[in-house]
Amino acid sequence: MEFKVSHTDGTARTGTAMTDHGSFQTPAFMPVGTQGTVKAIEQREIVEIGAEIILSNAYHLYLRPGTDILEQAGGLHRFMSWDKPILTDSGGYQVFSLSDLRTIEEEGVQFRSHLDGSLHRFTPERVVDIQRSIGSDIVMALDECAPYPCDREYAVSSNALTLRWAERCKKRFSATIPLYSHQQALFGIVQGSVYPDIREYATKVLTDLDFEGYAIGGLAVGEPAEEMYEVVSLCAELLPNDKPRYLMGVGTPENLLEAIERGVDMFDCVLPTRNGRNAMLFTRNGSFNITNAQFKADFTPIDPECECYACRTFTRAYLRHLFQVKEILGLHLATIHNLHFYQWLMRQAREAITSESFSQWKQQILSSLRQEVPIYS
Amino acid sequence: MEFKVSHTDGTARTGTAMTDHGSFQTPAFMPVGTQGTVKAIEQREIVEIGAEIILSNAYHLYLRPGTDILEQAGGLHRFMSWDKPILTDSGGYQVFSLSDLRTIEEEGVQFRSHLDGSLHRFTPERVVDIQRSIGSDIVMALDECAPYPCDREYAVSSNALTLRWAERCKKRFSATIPLYSHQQALFGIVQGSVYPDIREYATKVLTDLDFEGYAIGGLAVGEPAEEMYEVVSLCAELLPNDKPRYLMGVGTPENLLEAIERGVDMFDCVLPTRNGRNAMLFTRNGSFNITNAQFKADFTPIDPECECYACRTFTRAYLRHLFQVKEILGLHLATIHNLHFYQWLMRQAREAITSESFSQWKQQILSSLRQEVPIYS
Repeated sequence: MEFKVSHTDGTARTGTAMTDHGSFQTPAFMPVGTQGTVKAIEQREIVEIGAEIILSNAYHLYLRPGTDILEQAGGLHRFMSWDKPILTDSGGYQVFSLSDLRTIEEEGVQFRSHLDGSLHRFTPERVVDIQRSIGSDIVMALDECAPYPCDREYAVSSNALTLRWAERCKKRFSATIPLYSHQQALFGIVQGSVYPDIREYATKVLTDLDFEGYAIGGLAVGEPAEEMYEVVSLCAELLPNDKPRYLMGVGTPENLLEAIERGVDMFDCVLPTRNGRNAMLFTRNGSFNITNAQFKADFTPIDPECECYACRTFTRAYLRHLFQVKEILGLHLATIHNLHFYQWLMRQAREAITSESFSQWKQQILSSLRQEVPIYS
Repeated sequence: MEFKVSHTDGTARTGTAMTDHGSFQTPAFMPVGTQGTVKAIEQREIVEIGAEIILSNAYHLYLRPGTDILEQAGGLHRFMSWDKPILTDSGGYQVFSLSDLRTIEEEGVQFRSHLDGSLHRFTPERVVDIQRSIGSDIVMALDECAPYPCDREYAVSSNALTLRWAERCKKRFSATIPLYSHQQALFGIVQGSVYPDIREYATKVLTDLDFEGYAIGGLAVGEPAEEMYEVVSLCAELLPNDKPRYLMGVGTPENLLEAIERGVDMFDCVLPTRNGRNAMLFTRNGSFNITNAQFKADFTPIDPECECYACRTFTRAYLRHLFQVKEILGLHLATIHNLHFYQWLMRQAREAITSESFSQWKQQILSSLRQEVPIYS
């Protein structure tokens, strides 16, 4: 994978990452396609809303459809008919979320499937192998995502384990080759909870191991936003300038802009898709729940300035009706709109960086995003 | 509404119906959009699969979003952003299905909403008014759909009531004008259960009232297919040649072809959409449940000859995975495919009639449709 920063604006930057499945511009927001489908949207519509890379999840794909099916299909790209870049999370986060069902050891993590209780073990090596079977363009190392709050002692030992696992991932990755006709890149993950010295140590060790990109993990797990931003600032400052930086699982439009300002290049989050399915819509002028009675006879688009299929075609009143009567099309249109909004926000951010006006633009758009939505009719 | 038969082949015929929202070719299959949305498919995709007219339901739309909202929107076409023809069922069928919640009187039917138990009354006049508010291109009269089996006495009196209601609908329709800038057409409904003489009487009375089209109602309610076909033959023979004939709520591909052969022009049915959402897919070579284990590693399209988005883009293995992991995209792709299949079947039928080879084609396609689906991999 190649990565080129084309413009900087303070610590914010914009650039392009190139994979064998094409390039994506950064800052980039990756729609989440945990199970090999971004929920409630078609593949051609993911392209239509402007996404250039999606995220999927090794843990979920390992359980279903399983690596045997993925290998027979020729990898996840072919299995799901998506020919642009894919990043896969290792599944560590999902495994560690199964708190009663897993045990962490030096070797790896043993867990019981959330589906049928069957016993499985993920080691750093196994997780690389699974992502070789998946054929994702960007492979994530196995890490332990520490909870918040997390005492210092736990953070130190958890981070040390994550670093030993990172080294084993790197070793396995170097010792194996892609199963399909495209290259894959391996990213390391910086952990260390909210402790600056642990984060600094993690960054140094990982940088010495020399990954093709670096994720900042273990954030947006309950800590105050200010603590998150401080960790992001520190990590971004310490990570190499010529490699992409990926803030995992974040977040709100505000979180994204604050992180971009601090030098982050890549994001993923279920917020636009999950909130959309819960009738919560993002607009340039504030977010709202479309089921509110105020939209009953509101025949304006969700966002009059938005160019997505939902806004070009339908009204708030119609979308409200779809949610009221529990029709699938409601989930679908809300997903299209919210993902389009996130992609629009990233495009605007890239333009603001290119024109060296990011901070001013950020202030302006944030005050717009925080508005109460006016009643139109 | 204008209707022109362009070719006949025995009693089968093909033609064009013209409305102010454009024309549709017959025989036509109308996807069912009960609540102002065809379930699990976008409006632009309804066009893409080749449908030229959809069906919606006055009872459901009357309850939600309500005629006030529809009138403020400028009618259902604008409310749901569908600019092609719409036929609305009067809702009689739905009301009569609420067997414990409704009482039938000369004046009309009183019923309790299936949503909140609130009391409502549908009269023939009210049902016309509601469909004026909806603005459907084709308005259906209020009828009573008798159950099956149904004794002769009940069938006689029920049919007599339906005919008195039809006359009142016609009178109200003639005394009112469209609310929007397009014309509407009123269809009468032939009832009479499986009794030929009652059907014949109904046809005569309705024809004397002179509707713009005629539906054959009260079928596919549990009677054997042969009885249905006999009633269809009789009604089609008695109904005027220059008006469209619509067989309500029917049916399987086989039902459609048998009815087309007997002279039916229009159909609606939830089968392709509902079965699709239950993982049952129609193909030229038989139907199957995509969740079957035999499709786990079947990397062929649902139907290799089909040109729908699902078949052009995805494999059976992927679609099976989507249903296994309960992803919305599965419902969506199955709906697109099944509706596309029904539209393909209608196109083929029209071509066969035009080339005067309908019966031979029908035999051929029916034996193909009845096949066991071969295992490809």
